[in-house]
Amino acid sequence: MTDFDQVLAERVKEIEKIIDGYLPPVKGKQKTILEAMDYSMKAGGKRLRPMLLLETCRLFGGREEEAAPFMAAIEMIHTSSLIHDDLPCMDNDQYRRGKKSTWAKFGEDMGVLAGDALIVEAFSAAARAFAVTEDPERVGKAIKILAEKTGIYGMIGGQVVDVELTDKPIDRDTLGFIYRLKTGALLEASMTIGAVLAGADEESCKKIGQIALDVGVAFQIQDDILDVTSSQEVLGKPVGSDVKNNKTTYVTLEGILRAREEVERLSKEALELLSLLDGRNAFLDELIRMLITRER
Amino acid sequence: MTDFDQVLAERVKEIEKIIDGYLPPVKGKQKTILEAMDYSMKAGGKRLRPMLLLETCRLFGGREEEAAPFMAAIEMIHTSSLIHDDLPCMDNDQYRRGKKSTWAKFGEDMGVLAGDALIVEAFSAAARAFAVTEDPERVGKAIKILAEKTGIYGMIGGQVVDVELTDKPIDRDTLGFIYRLKTGALLEASMTIGAVLAGADEESCKKIGQIALDVGVAFQIQDDILDVTSSQEVLGKPVGSDVKNNKTTYVTLEGILRAREEVERLSKEALELLSLLDGRNAFLDELIRMLITRER
Repeated sequence: MTDFDQVLAERVKEIEKIIDGYLPPVKGKQKTILEAMDYSMKAGGKRLRPMLLLETCRLFGGREEEAAPFMAAIEMIHTSSLIHDDLPCMDNDQYRRGKKSTWAKFGEDMGVLAGDALIVEAFSAAARAFAVTEDPERVGKAIKILAEKTGIYGMIGGQVVDVELTDKPIDRDTLGFIYRLKTGALLEASMTIGAVLAGADEESCKKIGQIALDVGVAFQIQDDILDVTSSQEVLGKPVGSDVKNNKTTYVTLEGILRAREEVERLSKEALELLSLLDGRNAFLDELIRMLITRER
Repeated sequence: MTDFDQVLAERVKEIEKIIDGYLPPVKGKQKTILEAMDYSMKAGGKRLRPMLLLETCRLFGGREEEAAPFMAAIEMIHTSSLIHDDLPCMDNDQYRRGKKSTWAKFGEDMGVLAGDALIVEAFSAAARAFAVTEDPERVGKAIKILAEKTGIYGMIGGQVVDVELTDKPIDRDTLGFIYRLKTGALLEASMTIGAVLAGADEESCKKIGQIALDVGVAFQIQDDILDVTSSQEVLGKPVGSDVKNNKTTYVTLEGILRAREEVERLSKEALELLSLLDGRNAFLDELIRMLITRER
């Protein structure tokens, strides 16, 4: 474990504590769904999106207190998408991260409803930011971004195209669309919301959005690469699944060398853009470098 | 057709025009889901929630322009719940209002995603209110109410308990909980949001919330009554389905006479509370009276 890995593990714990504060207590007549939501939210994960949100907010001089409601919100949205992705009518996955997926544990109906409830709860958490902000317009803007980057022009839009093209040929252009929306949009939302909440000017918010998109797409291509080059021991999940499932990825379309070049190009662009901004956040620099060069 | 029926039909058309303005255009790579959303939103219905929202906003001197984004939002939330209710793992309904249900027409995966997208799009529409309001705090408050009354402590919470208790005995207390949350909460949201957007004081918003809950529960009990006393010709849908499905309703628990008394009591309370408020909206009075005494 490197020093950065250790710092990272600490930060993940801090973030999980913040998010926990926004999870509704598991009690009352609707206990089952609250249990399902709690189970899904506490099933682990990198907590990447809330971390990027917080660190971008800090980069522009914002406070954790202002970021917190949206950190919870973005993780809830992300979790809801995992729950619904796993449903029998979607990827039909019984397991996620070595544990039973939400529908497999709580039933398919509760899987649908828990995902729905987490989407709604995300906006409920976000709306709590009005109580801690000095500038309700910033919060309004952040809610708008959250909705746009989650919906049909963001994550869900990417998901739809991905689902529709299962087992069909995908061209370079469409693959880029899926990566930008399915993976990129929520990272874009995370970083842009962090900037908006800290009061960054429009120009900087735009640049941050571009950085996040670069990181998102590079992250996804790196995923494709690792599926070919890594091992189950290192990655913690089965490898070679893209080839097995006949799935079009950047690697199957362009080959591993060009995939590596593209990750290199995108990460260089992201880090350069980041260095041109006024503020400085060494942890954020390191985090982005790690995300792209990661081996698992 | 009475005069009021005619006025009502006109208003429904006006409301549908307003909502249409918030539906995303059906085009682009994610066209299928946009089609599914459009199909579901245009499948008819009483448009009761946006109508109550608008009329309550008017009651307190608010403008249609301010109410519009939330009128679209509340109808999108309502529609999303119908789409997900119809899914095979929920009620497994192939038809709704004589047309194919969304999943039956577009596939189960698109049914899940279209419902998700409509929840998100609702908050996207609501956030557009920031652009037309003079008071962003009101919009923030309205978004908070929308999320709370949709989520686990509102509509979805009621839905969860209803689903869990299918084919199980339900006591009076639990049935009241389901009616208040599953049917009542979204009407409560509609009317309270209308009041909040118009700048009504806290006391009035609370009273409006109570009125809406009374109307919601009375509306649901009236539904139970009509399922026993009406005919398919009048109601436009099969009757006797509660008994056939062995479903616990207010009528099966308390009998038809007490059910009628309860509707009477709730509607009297609602109309009395309404008459005690400062403003006046004759159409709203009439609408509420109609909702409760309706024969279909």
